[in-house]
Amino acid sequence: MKLQSALNFSHTLLKKAVNPGDNVIDGTAGLGHDTLFLAQLVGQKGKVFSFDIQQSAIDATNHRINENEVQHQCEVIHDGHENVKRYINDQPISAAIFNLGYLPTGNKTIITKPATTLKAVSAILNNLTPNGIIILVLYYGHPGGKEEKNQVLDFAGNLDQHQYNVLKYQFINQINDPPILIAIQKRTKSS
Amino acid sequence: MKLQSALNFSHTLLKKAVNPGDNVIDGTAGLGHDTLFLAQLVGQKGKVFSFDIQQSAIDATNHRINENEVQHQCEVIHDGHENVKRYINDQPISAAIFNLGYLPTGNKTIITKPATTLKAVSAILNNLTPNGIIILVLYYGHPGGKEEKNQVLDFAGNLDQHQYNVLKYQFINQINDPPILIAIQKRTKSS
Repeated sequence: MKLQSALNFSHTLLKKAVNPGDNVIDGTAGLGHDTLFLAQLVGQKGKVFSFDIQQSAIDATNHRINENEVQHQCEVIHDGHENVKRYINDQPISAAIFNLGYLPTGNKTIITKPATTLKAVSAILNNLTPNGIIILVLYYGHPGGKEEKNQVLDFAGNLDQHQYNVLKYQFINQINDPPILIAIQKRTKSS
Repeated sequence: MKLQSALNFSHTLLKKAVNPGDNVIDGTAGLGHDTLFLAQLVGQKGKVFSFDIQQSAIDATNHRINENEVQHQCEVIHDGHENVKRYINDQPISAAIFNLGYLPTGNKTIITKPATTLKAVSAILNNLTPNGIIILVLYYGHPGGKEEKNQVLDFAGNLDQHQYNVLKYQFINQINDPPILIAIQKRTKSS
């Protein structure tokens, strides 16, 4: 076996956290990989809310979900994830994923930013079910990346330990800024 | 599902890394929990080398493995883990675990120390099989604990990325110094 990359570990956690029929969020649709992955986990009775600000990402995601015939359970939203509350209202959310940085195939100056990222995370925390999880995969090698990384780590590290468990999963001997995974899990009364 | 504690995640990794017939090491026998766990993973054709400097730990470990009838595949060694090389010689090792700190039921001033810990880890790295793994669970709330934590992190973080992947698994929003897991995996040529 090989130690899982942050990206693969995010999928391992989502597989364990998400059940058929759940409502979940892809905060950064990008090429639609995670939207498809989540759509398969929630099944036809579940719902994936998938956000992106770039038209090319919306197009790629729609193409991928149509091709895999999971469009029924997906709502692909051309809007910033900071407006997530307008779309989910009071619906319970069992999982959310954000891949922070830029769209690999797109304009590398269009990046996620700490203020909007944290506004989205804060909104989702309010709707998170017990044992529900928000996963942030932080890519931070680009200009602006380290600032976002530091603000997300500061926010997550200061969440109340009685309400949340916050895990950091990181390879520490690699020079090329490999992504860091942060997982925020809402505690149940007994955990 | 719940995010696994460092201790539980150490067992998840060992289960994936260890196969029947393997040679493995418990660097800190303590109450024998990990020695028993490893003995069950390696089976009768494998071997667990289990080290402790405290007689009470040796007794507890021998008691546990006898009770569970796995003594055949265990060598419980009353010696410091820094002398590991004398016992394993050139045998390949697929996994090792260290719980660093003090024996919970014992004298809390008898603690693992960075110099001997890192001597043991360095010796085992030389015998580690491709994809083999050394896991260090760092308890560091006690006097001397932070110094050991910092030296281990410094050592592990500076291992050559072409030879090893070094993972850090840590809960970051808890005030009571929860244990940190470090996993050092030897890379194969293709990984």
